[in-house]
Amino acid sequence: MCELLGMSANVPTDLCFSFTGLLQRGGGTGPHRDGWGVVFYEGKGLRAFRDSAPSVDSEIAKLVSRLPVKSCIAISHIREANVGAVNLENTHPFVREMWGQNWTFAHNGQLADAASLPLADFIPVGTTDSEQAFCWLLAKIRDRFESPQRIARDRTNFWRQLKHWCDHLRSMGVANLLFSEGQYLYAYCSTKLHWLTRKAPFGEARLSDADLTVDFGEHTTPRDIVTVIATNPLTANEHWQAMDPGELIVFDAGQVIFQSED
Amino acid sequence: MCELLGMSANVPTDLCFSFTGLLQRGGGTGPHRDGWGVVFYEGKGLRAFRDSAPSVDSEIAKLVSRLPVKSCIAISHIREANVGAVNLENTHPFVREMWGQNWTFAHNGQLADAASLPLADFIPVGTTDSEQAFCWLLAKIRDRFESPQRIARDRTNFWRQLKHWCDHLRSMGVANLLFSEGQYLYAYCSTKLHWLTRKAPFGEARLSDADLTVDFGEHTTPRDIVTVIATNPLTANEHWQAMDPGELIVFDAGQVIFQSED
Repeated sequence: MCELLGMSANVPTDLCFSFTGLLQRGGGTGPHRDGWGVVFYEGKGLRAFRDSAPSVDSEIAKLVSRLPVKSCIAISHIREANVGAVNLENTHPFVREMWGQNWTFAHNGQLADAASLPLADFIPVGTTDSEQAFCWLLAKIRDRFESPQRIARDRTNFWRQLKHWCDHLRSMGVANLLFSEGQYLYAYCSTKLHWLTRKAPFGEARLSDADLTVDFGEHTTPRDIVTVIATNPLTANEHWQAMDPGELIVFDAGQVIFQSED
Repeated sequence: MCELLGMSANVPTDLCFSFTGLLQRGGGTGPHRDGWGVVFYEGKGLRAFRDSAPSVDSEIAKLVSRLPVKSCIAISHIREANVGAVNLENTHPFVREMWGQNWTFAHNGQLADAASLPLADFIPVGTTDSEQAFCWLLAKIRDRFESPQRIARDRTNFWRQLKHWCDHLRSMGVANLLFSEGQYLYAYCSTKLHWLTRKAPFGEARLSDADLTVDFGEHTTPRDIVTVIATNPLTANEHWQAMDPGELIVFDAGQVIFQSED
């Protein structure tokens, strides 16, 4: 299995604190030694860092945990391989351009018979069930909705449809998902995902996996809203909410704007 | 204008030496202050680093010039913006997946009326003439050749057709290009591109832009073949070959396997 980390914020925010906790689980406090990756959106562009080496040993991961890359949306993943060799093309998050937008996708879980998911123009570069699922999902979205303008006319309909497609992936195994097109962060829970919104009054947070405490009050303004989503809670002294199996939550600028009903 | 750097090698080779020279031109010895990027292929996957800050000041660029990322194909670009704002989505090289391959593209030059190039499924994320040209070229390739298998059946025909499309871009302005699908490195000269093949017996090379000399004899085996392509020669004591305007050269594992006749 793997671990996911996502962030949605209303002001460009760095991921250093959470990423420092996560990367300990890549061969340190956790068994996820088979690579890691992180995507930071910056405007319509993005920065992707990835490595097939364990994050706890990775020079690039050390740089990223130090670099104050500020972003309103970030998605990260550390991998414990089950399907597909340990190499760069099998390292999440996966990225594709569709409609002039960068779509990013990371998956925790395993799908039976992912090869049966039909593809169109998006073809996996690597051999993971996850990338196959991503390519299938993008083709579904393009085929059904045709343009971002059409999605914008009825977003709730789009989100309900997304949940339906995620449910289909969940029916094939385990599909905890984080994905984005740069504006919204989509979190779908199959078995395990937790989230937490930090806003004023900000307090102190203490990492579970490393000896690090941050007083967010010193680094924020009263208007900042930052939501962090992770497979397992990253801090020991804050109240993380567990998502329900089959639940899709859509975050925009750090806030929940859609939560599926079951 | 911008500067390009490419590498094709028969064994995974690091780009540290050449990249160190190039990044000096990004705000140090050269005026290319508007961002930089580099893509390293690793198997079918790739590592991309990019920044909209000048390379000479960039923390990420410093890491990359130190990190021995070893690759058989790399493409890099430092930018002096003429079309499109200075931001991440306008930073070369551009990457798209087609047919399960990662295609990478970098451009030095300027195209008049690039918006007139018709697009299909690949849509620019940013606003550069370069990304528009890349999206147009990919659509041309997909439309004409349909699959990598069909290209493999008559590669010479594919390369002649590629030159024809590059000539079209050149007719719109200046189009010095480096691109790849991970196996071959394509270099097209519109006004200025130089290349150099290093092989046994290896000698010493001295950077033009930084006080750095490397004895490649100490870092190579007698079988290594490494070709470097750059807008301007990066070393002062080696014999770089200038490409002809309108010339396409295809490199495979460090060697020329196709050179267009004019």
